[in-house]
Amino acid sequence: MAFTYRQEVMFRHCDPARIVFYPRYFEMLNDVVESLFATIPGHTFADMHADRAVPTARIETEFLAPSRLGDVLEFTLSFPRVGRSSLHTRFVARCGEEIRLRASSVIVHVGTGLRPAPWPDDARAALVAHLEET
Amino acid sequence: MAFTYRQEVMFRHCDPARIVFYPRYFEMLNDVVESLFATIPGHTFADMHADRAVPTARIETEFLAPSRLGDVLEFTLSFPRVGRSSLHTRFVARCGEEIRLRASSVIVHVGTGLRPAPWPDDARAALVAHLEET
Amino acid sequence: MAFTYRQEVMFRHCDPARIVFYPRYFEMLNDVVESLFATIPGHTFADMHADRAVPTARIETEFLAPSRLGDVLEFTLSFPRVGRSSLHTRFVARCGEEIRLRASSVIVHVGTGLRPAPWPDDARAALVAHLEET
Amino acid sequence: MAFTYRQEVMFRHCDPARIVFYPRYFEMLNDVVESLFATIPGHTFADMHADRAVPTARIETEFLAPSRLGDVLEFTLSFPRVGRSSLHTRFVARCGEEIRLRASSVIVHVGTGLRPAPWPDDARAALVAHLEET
Repeated sequence: MAFTYRQEVMFRHCDPARIVFYPRYFEMLNDVVESLFATIPGHTFADMHADRAVPTARIETEFLAPSRLGDVLEFTLSFPRVGRSSLHTRFVARCGEEIRLRASSVIVHVGTGLRPAPWPDDARAALVAHLEET
Repeated sequence: MAFTYRQEVMFRHCDPARIVFYPRYFEMLNDVVESLFATIPGHTFADMHADRAVPTARIETEFLAPSRLGDVLEFTLSFPRVGRSSLHTRFVARCGEEIRLRASSVIVHVGTGLRPAPWPDDARAALVAHLEET
Repeated sequence: MAFTYRQEVMFRHCDPARIVFYPRYFEMLNDVVESLFATIPGHTFADMHADRAVPTARIETEFLAPSRLGDVLEFTLSFPRVGRSSLHTRFVARCGEEIRLRASSVIVHVGTGLRPAPWPDDARAALVAHLEET
Repeated sequence: MAFTYRQEVMFRHCDPARIVFYPRYFEMLNDVVESLFATIPGHTFADMHADRAVPTARIETEFLAPSRLGDVLEFTLSFPRVGRSSLHTRFVARCGEEIRLRASSVIVHVGTGLRPAPWPDDARAALVAHLEET
């Protein structure tokens, strides 16, 4: 089941063209991921950042229509694949019926020295709940 | 010929994992593009933003190795293709010999109402100078 | 009556010292102000930013204790004074009982050319509801 | 002698009112401080952030005139006082002859657990070079 997240477009997101400045979308996408991990006891970003992290290894993004101040964006996040220490993500952001952004990324679970580390079993079980159906 | 741009990794770029927070790389990539346009008289971002803009339509990025506070990043920007109103970009960021990031994007030149508008001839001529050789 | 606003400390707010990077607090304070104006019909930031704006003319801030990833900050915003075209603000941010930040600023309502413009009557009436009692 | 720092106003600094969004000025001020410490061997932000930090305890800022895309800002930073573990700063940002911003802050040198720690002698000697004359 996709995870959902709502973000209103704030003044701080917008640029002189009066639309969302695209690097700010990536801050939003990070908030989406962080909010999903906030639902996994023991694996919130606060829990993890003593000795673990979940850096993004790659991300592809299409900006399909501009977003403006006050627009309410509804994000969905689902996972095409949960790897041993990786997570393949798919994001869609909509305003009403209009798709504003599509993105897919690979996130890696790393431990000391930023080396890939297998997902702990409980984290994996929680992530798998957001796997896309095939 | 590729356009080059140098950016030291500053404190504001870094996250609690003590590496560059990936949305900040997109701010850097925007600075690279903005700095290239700063070399084209009449088409700097300041010139354009009365009634034109150059939003990013899509971008694909690989983060190949983490960057840390104080690292000096050397960006190159070249264009695989200059379209009628679009610009296909290729970015590489290196620290010394190590490639940290590769990205490619499509930027669109838009006018009033954010509608695509052909590159003016002088802008096109300047952009073409950074076309990749084939 | 003070306006209240809740913001969890997110990864994007934090720096390599693993505390909120102080410029990010100002983004939060702007969100607080923007959220208050969102309660005033016809004077949301989206309404205003065609030909008006509310830039900050001055701000004084004390950072009394550091905030960390996952902390939930409760902001209050009240107004010591509502001027003809200005607004004197007072912010307090707490995490539980602990005060993390105190700030006071002067915001100016400006129209075309960024020139000060009197608050419209309905906006003033809404702002006055958050005046501090004397 | 005041430390000087030059920053062009970039697209990422600007808001829908097409002027610098004030939280971005604080990112610039942090860059100014970071650039000054970059001149002190052994005390760059990269050197310090293993077990030390220099958080800002308070800051007062006046925004005297708006800055626009492409403006070149010249910052000066000097120190009214170098305390045992504190640093009192004074910033001025000008565009040409026009003063855009004045700020003063107190920065604290902290060690493990974010507890104030005396400036090391060599750092102090370097900081004292930027003391204001009395």
